[in-house]
Amino acid sequence: MRKLIANGTVVTASETFKADVWLNDDKVEAITAPVGTLPKDRVPQFDETIDAKGQFLFPGGIDVHTHLDMPFGGTTSSDDFETGTRAAAYGGTTTIIDFAIQQKGGTLTEALDTWHKKASGKAVADYAFHMIATDLPPARLEEMKRIVDEGVTSFKLFMAYPNVLLLDDQSIFRGMLRAGELGALICMHAETGLPIDVLIERARSRGERAPVYHALTRPEAAEATGTERAIALAEMAKVPVYIVHLSAARALERVREARDRGLPAFAETCPQYLFLSQDDLARPGFDGAAYICTPPLRPQHHHEQLWRGIRNHDLQVVATDHCPFCMKDQKELGRDDFSKVPNGMPGVESRMYLLWEAVQQGKIDLNRFVDISSTTPSKIFGMYGKKGTLAVGADADIVVWDPQKEVTLSVKTMHMKVDYNPYEGKKVRGGPSHVLQRGRVIVKNDQFLARPGDGQFIRRRTHTL
Amino acid sequence: MRKLIANGTVVTASETFKADVWLNDDKVEAITAPVGTLPKDRVPQFDETIDAKGQFLFPGGIDVHTHLDMPFGGTTSSDDFETGTRAAAYGGTTTIIDFAIQQKGGTLTEALDTWHKKASGKAVADYAFHMIATDLPPARLEEMKRIVDEGVTSFKLFMAYPNVLLLDDQSIFRGMLRAGELGALICMHAETGLPIDVLIERARSRGERAPVYHALTRPEAAEATGTERAIALAEMAKVPVYIVHLSAARALERVREARDRGLPAFAETCPQYLFLSQDDLARPGFDGAAYICTPPLRPQHHHEQLWRGIRNHDLQVVATDHCPFCMKDQKELGRDDFSKVPNGMPGVESRMYLLWEAVQQGKIDLNRFVDISSTTPSKIFGMYGKKGTLAVGADADIVVWDPQKEVTLSVKTMHMKVDYNPYEGKKVRGGPSHVLQRGRVIVKNDQFLARPGDGQFIRRRTHTL
Amino acid sequence: MRKLIANGTVVTASETFKADVWLNDDKVEAITAPVGTLPKDRVPQFDETIDAKGQFLFPGGIDVHTHLDMPFGGTTSSDDFETGTRAAAYGGTTTIIDFAIQQKGGTLTEALDTWHKKASGKAVADYAFHMIATDLPPARLEEMKRIVDEGVTSFKLFMAYPNVLLLDDQSIFRGMLRAGELGALICMHAETGLPIDVLIERARSRGERAPVYHALTRPEAAEATGTERAIALAEMAKVPVYIVHLSAARALERVREARDRGLPAFAETCPQYLFLSQDDLARPGFDGAAYICTPPLRPQHHHEQLWRGIRNHDLQVVATDHCPFCMKDQKELGRDDFSKVPNGMPGVESRMYLLWEAVQQGKIDLNRFVDISSTTPSKIFGMYGKKGTLAVGADADIVVWDPQKEVTLSVKTMHMKVDYNPYEGKKVRGGPSHVLQRGRVIVKNDQFLARPGDGQFIRRRTHTL
Amino acid sequence: MRKLIANGTVVTASETFKADVWLNDDKVEAITAPVGTLPKDRVPQFDETIDAKGQFLFPGGIDVHTHLDMPFGGTTSSDDFETGTRAAAYGGTTTIIDFAIQQKGGTLTEALDTWHKKASGKAVADYAFHMIATDLPPARLEEMKRIVDEGVTSFKLFMAYPNVLLLDDQSIFRGMLRAGELGALICMHAETGLPIDVLIERARSRGERAPVYHALTRPEAAEATGTERAIALAEMAKVPVYIVHLSAARALERVREARDRGLPAFAETCPQYLFLSQDDLARPGFDGAAYICTPPLRPQHHHEQLWRGIRNHDLQVVATDHCPFCMKDQKELGRDDFSKVPNGMPGVESRMYLLWEAVQQGKIDLNRFVDISSTTPSKIFGMYGKKGTLAVGADADIVVWDPQKEVTLSVKTMHMKVDYNPYEGKKVRGGPSHVLQRGRVIVKNDQFLARPGDGQFIRRRTHTL
Repeated sequence: MRKLIANGTVVTASETFKADVWLNDDKVEAITAPVGTLPKDRVPQFDETIDAKGQFLFPGGIDVHTHLDMPFGGTTSSDDFETGTRAAAYGGTTTIIDFAIQQKGGTLTEALDTWHKKASGKAVADYAFHMIATDLPPARLEEMKRIVDEGVTSFKLFMAYPNVLLLDDQSIFRGMLRAGELGALICMHAETGLPIDVLIERARSRGERAPVYHALTRPEAAEATGTERAIALAEMAKVPVYIVHLSAARALERVREARDRGLPAFAETCPQYLFLSQDDLARPGFDGAAYICTPPLRPQHHHEQLWRGIRNHDLQVVATDHCPFCMKDQKELGRDDFSKVPNGMPGVESRMYLLWEAVQQGKIDLNRFVDISSTTPSKIFGMYGKKGTLAVGADADIVVWDPQKEVTLSVKTMHMKVDYNPYEGKKVRGGPSHVLQRGRVIVKNDQFLARPGDGQFIRRRTHTL
Repeated sequence: MRKLIANGTVVTASETFKADVWLNDDKVEAITAPVGTLPKDRVPQFDETIDAKGQFLFPGGIDVHTHLDMPFGGTTSSDDFETGTRAAAYGGTTTIIDFAIQQKGGTLTEALDTWHKKASGKAVADYAFHMIATDLPPARLEEMKRIVDEGVTSFKLFMAYPNVLLLDDQSIFRGMLRAGELGALICMHAETGLPIDVLIERARSRGERAPVYHALTRPEAAEATGTERAIALAEMAKVPVYIVHLSAARALERVREARDRGLPAFAETCPQYLFLSQDDLARPGFDGAAYICTPPLRPQHHHEQLWRGIRNHDLQVVATDHCPFCMKDQKELGRDDFSKVPNGMPGVESRMYLLWEAVQQGKIDLNRFVDISSTTPSKIFGMYGKKGTLAVGADADIVVWDPQKEVTLSVKTMHMKVDYNPYEGKKVRGGPSHVLQRGRVIVKNDQFLARPGDGQFIRRRTHTL
Repeated sequence: MRKLIANGTVVTASETFKADVWLNDDKVEAITAPVGTLPKDRVPQFDETIDAKGQFLFPGGIDVHTHLDMPFGGTTSSDDFETGTRAAAYGGTTTIIDFAIQQKGGTLTEALDTWHKKASGKAVADYAFHMIATDLPPARLEEMKRIVDEGVTSFKLFMAYPNVLLLDDQSIFRGMLRAGELGALICMHAETGLPIDVLIERARSRGERAPVYHALTRPEAAEATGTERAIALAEMAKVPVYIVHLSAARALERVREARDRGLPAFAETCPQYLFLSQDDLARPGFDGAAYICTPPLRPQHHHEQLWRGIRNHDLQVVATDHCPFCMKDQKELGRDDFSKVPNGMPGVESRMYLLWEAVQQGKIDLNRFVDISSTTPSKIFGMYGKKGTLAVGADADIVVWDPQKEVTLSVKTMHMKVDYNPYEGKKVRGGPSHVLQRGRVIVKNDQFLARPGDGQFIRRRTHTL
Repeated sequence: MRKLIANGTVVTASETFKADVWLNDDKVEAITAPVGTLPKDRVPQFDETIDAKGQFLFPGGIDVHTHLDMPFGGTTSSDDFETGTRAAAYGGTTTIIDFAIQQKGGTLTEALDTWHKKASGKAVADYAFHMIATDLPPARLEEMKRIVDEGVTSFKLFMAYPNVLLLDDQSIFRGMLRAGELGALICMHAETGLPIDVLIERARSRGERAPVYHALTRPEAAEATGTERAIALAEMAKVPVYIVHLSAARALERVREARDRGLPAFAETCPQYLFLSQDDLARPGFDGAAYICTPPLRPQHHHEQLWRGIRNHDLQVVATDHCPFCMKDQKELGRDDFSKVPNGMPGVESRMYLLWEAVQQGKIDLNRFVDISSTTPSKIFGMYGKKGTLAVGADADIVVWDPQKEVTLSVKTMHMKVDYNPYEGKKVRGGPSHVLQRGRVIVKNDQFLARPGDGQFIRRRTHTL
């Protein structure tokens, strides 16, 4: 089965050029001058042609940070692997990496099995897993090898959420040393959670229970110091480290400083930290609860610092931390107490629209757009070559992006299974006309063409950072 | 009882001028032009005159960091309050602050009582206490007030020594908040100890057991990140913090950065970090054990950074962390394993000689010498006015310093109760000809004139930082 | 002639203590416990007693940056040495350093003679001179020695005001090398003037002629880069450098950075940069002209940075750059063109009041107040011992400061010869009840008691920085 | 005429993939899976096939900093456009940008004409020009537009070489403002030359005349401050700036700092600053003269800082500043005086070999190699799309790079017209087997196949930075 995507402009993390793209089954076979300009002996037959005139061709988006079907605080994130990956695909993201979560005292293998079951037969986009380790006794350190052998080559550890997810510095350090031996990557939730819990307790005892206190009890300093500590521990362990969902200017400062010293420190941020702010948490009544995620939204002035970090390569990835909870029945669990509101926001579908907005505003260029949304994620997480690139031999995961398409971000127009949209009513210009996964068109002019189970699990390689 | 110190040059933390100093019992009564130049009606009668011609007059040295008679690792530091304070006085230090140590599970009051017993009737110099808290459940947080009321207005917490002294970030944070309420100061041992213990365990398992591994398993990064965390926790708690025995350039960097942001962060270093280096730890055989203290001695290049920090006011205090252990029977406990060597070095007697050496080398000026060794310590720790100043109304703790005196630092010439001297054989020029405590000459030309119990306990005020 | 200042609190750059101060003619003879508490044989006779109960005693203020009787832009600064030093004394400043200005092509000696004539017989406060060099051919470099020998041990050079005062980098560098040989200090006006003139020319050509354009055409970047260059040239010449009237946060950053690297870089700021802002320049109509000085007033947010710099010792001196021009006939020269407004503001009288305000607001402490206004200026500029200290043997230049005194800063209440006050109507609390110069009371409860010519020229020593 | 480059691995600034490359005349027509794997209807006919099995395909190198046939210090750089571009091509560089130099008082157009004559009919590689402006009166500012219209869209200005090339800050600033209007880019030689000349004069007067004094009289501080000033002037003019041949860690620090603040500041370094050091200048006798270039080679420890800058995108380009002078008759002009030695070194041919060495050492990855040597230079200097990319539609400037090729850098093996090689005898692994320019093989296994005049002038677009 051969397809032609004709007349588009190919954009990679460094190049921009007009070309036709030929697909052979699931792979990119060739990138050529317009077939009409080729000599007769080169005019091939295609089974199908997509006309991309006036449109851009990107490698499919990769969102390395999602939480689908995840139990949290007595409820479960509202998107499962079917609805979540479908929404991703609608938004131009063809690969996600979700998090399997070890039960404290349980094995990593059990966690992986559980998450394979959640995804299998349901996912419509391709998917991989990180492994969240919640304790790391010797047996689990040993077991890490088996997980890596299964293609789960990154482990996420928490400095926050005491008693639930938090690991102490010794466990973290042993986990880092072990990851170093295995070539696996440590991803860190780098907020320092122990003092945060004291701040929460004090706020509650003072009757400060509105959503905005979520931000006021998780100050920038807590994230900055956690980020610094994560990097210092990694430096002592002589391994790379990847900071997830960096939200604050001062935390970025710590990453930059480490990189200036030559350390292999990496960080992702998320659209919510680039487009929303603490003001949203302070919306009247309980409305701010829609914006509770962790780390919290920060004051407006952080935005420009984060964009600068993206431009200067101090931030390498923009992922979503997609973790939706409905206002009704879910966010409402914390109606009287911000600390009971499930933490998380939807975003897997809106990421590419918002980053494109930044391209139009001149905050980043076309190539950096592709780099942070697809190419660098694929390199850091061991999928490059197959994913993350629009090049000969790669999986034909391609987004045909229509810069003229008008889209309104809204709970009505979008496909995430959640009863609100944090960007409700925001009009953007530019969106996918076609989304191809391994050569198959799965979204075409807002029609969804894939079936549950079409998504494949991706065994990732270890990193080469 | 009136005394005259005639013909000397008074040096304070900011001024230098020739003057006579009149003492009335235990206080400084006047600082005047040479009495010989005063008119007849002003020629007073003195019971005793000390001729300080060609000599400097400093306020008595204050060493805010000593460990006398302290149990550690199955042995006890070799100087008790008698020998330790006598050695201090010999070296021009008339006030020390030692550390009372809470037993885990015990009360702070018990600890204070224990230390009062150790000092009472023995000390020859004046003394005060910090309180080391080793756990901080609600009852202890409550009890902190009583301790402050007793004139013990600073609490030391540890980020190092897991299972022995280490407090987790939540306890530290609660301690800081409580200190903030009481106006007490938190002193922090800021090495991040949890990963250090893993490094030690791995070094030992590889057979790396010589003294130098003490330094190699406690890297600069561990101190830098601990320092950063201590400051960040204090920032979140909105209280000042004082970093004890800062040894590493990168840790200093963290302090400077915080101060540049306007935070009330303070730090002390010690002579061993200014004059000795990791090379001493690497001396052949077991000789390096003499130099095991914590944080460890650092490579030579840190020296210049620390001096710069002192000159630029990023370091405010030079104390000693005097904690002597004899080579025989004590340091020897770790003959086959650096991690079993008691941590600590003698220094209470040599501090002023070494800092004077720095004056002669142009590293600091006369006033900064007085400032870091006496005046600022007294201000930070709530004793200023009584101690730390050579001014009318202050305790007549005065060092008459002879810049021509030749001294050899040696176990033979010095008075600390320990069987080695880290600076053995080093010749310096300049030392005390007389040391006065509350108006009484306690050292005169190397003769010791005070008796055990002459030292008084000082109730300190809370800080005004 | 002997005087007693009884019952006050002496404040030096590092100490604070209650004491009586005895004066013998022009010198401080003794600082003692209250004479009433002294034994009979020590009760001296005094010719005069000043009761300073409840008041502070400071060393007389030193303002190292004034421009009295200075020709500028076709007019002359409105205070001469009589009115200017009288106003200084009223405000607690007993010593000034003014600037002699070489005529381009003329000799330094001529300039010095001219300025001696301006001051002699008129000054009521003591005074010294810096020398402004406006060209530096070999003969002038040679002549610098003679100037130093005359007690004028600092040379000010300009990076701003092309064609008038600006020296190119080669002349500056030669001047620095020569100063290094002589032990003299280079003071630098560090704005980069050449691009500024282009910005002014472009603003004027666009019709931007209101006073606020004075600030908009002299951006922070111009001062920051000049400051960096001044320090770099001094680094290459291996000499210290002193930045005058630093106004901008980014320039301070450059000083701090240099000091962190261990370079002998020093800087002064002025009250106008701490208390006034660019908003004052933007006052309606021509009112902003009152606030035209150079460098220009900066936006409000610089204030906190400068205070932090003062607290952290990155700024060492607060001087005034007192250079008054009346609105009428003088400032008015630029009614239609900001670039024609004479640059300068009055301030010599209000400095101490404003810095005291900062003490009350907790921005600096008492000792730092004395340090930046008197002690450090005397040290940097070779007058310490005689001036800048309230200590035995020093000139009895003493300010008796009544913290309860209520003062309104106003053209009506103050004594500078200029028709406006930049702080008009501002009420402050605290001011001098008595000002003594070399033992004589020259201001007493707002009465002025000195006569023109009472001020003496001070030959300064070379620096020991 | 159609060519196939088969079986190679294509490397771009972000991607790496195995593919065949089809050329149609001078352009890249397609990049495809191996033609053998394509279906019959897609098997095209090629006139010529190059087998690149086991080899890499890069876009042709772009060296944006050469000085061919350039008069300097009474002699002329020894490579002209024929020999220089041939050597470039041998080394894998298919495009250079050389510098036309305005005669002081002459027009820019004359300069451009002169350089067109030098290049025309001689160059074998494609070439473009920067324009060096040596004075900038209004007529020249006006004329800049014409030069831009001729496709010369960057102007180089000098802060060094007083009386010859140096412009004062006002001329520089006017030039920047004008460049801003035209969309042209300012390139800056950022050493502060005026104090340097004084240092040279003093060194010579002390008899310090050996080559190493070239470095000792051009200290790092001179480059750091010039770099800071260039960026500050550009900031004031609101234009981007490009620092040429950055050599020193502290200058890099200034660039990084500016970029962290979000300023459009860019910088290139050169292989000599990455691979050679001040030690080479200190070689015995006159041998060091071979290594005299400006800025001078720096002490070894700068290397790691510069590599870090390259990895972190603080340095964007590696060019050569190729400016060869023979030892005989040319460098010898300064046998008795380092300041008379013509400044410059050969390097246009060795650049890619050396950068490849860095890839093998892990200092940079394959993509960054392409980025700094070709892609980013083409983007910054307005040639991207045509040059700097191996993509459909681009000029078929392709280097087929054999990683197994063994090369000895030597005056015997290389083709630059100069009687020494700074890397003499250095063995490297990896070099071009074929070099194609606009589809024609111009170097094949060390055979040169192009003729003088084959190189074309490239009209560059204005920048979009």
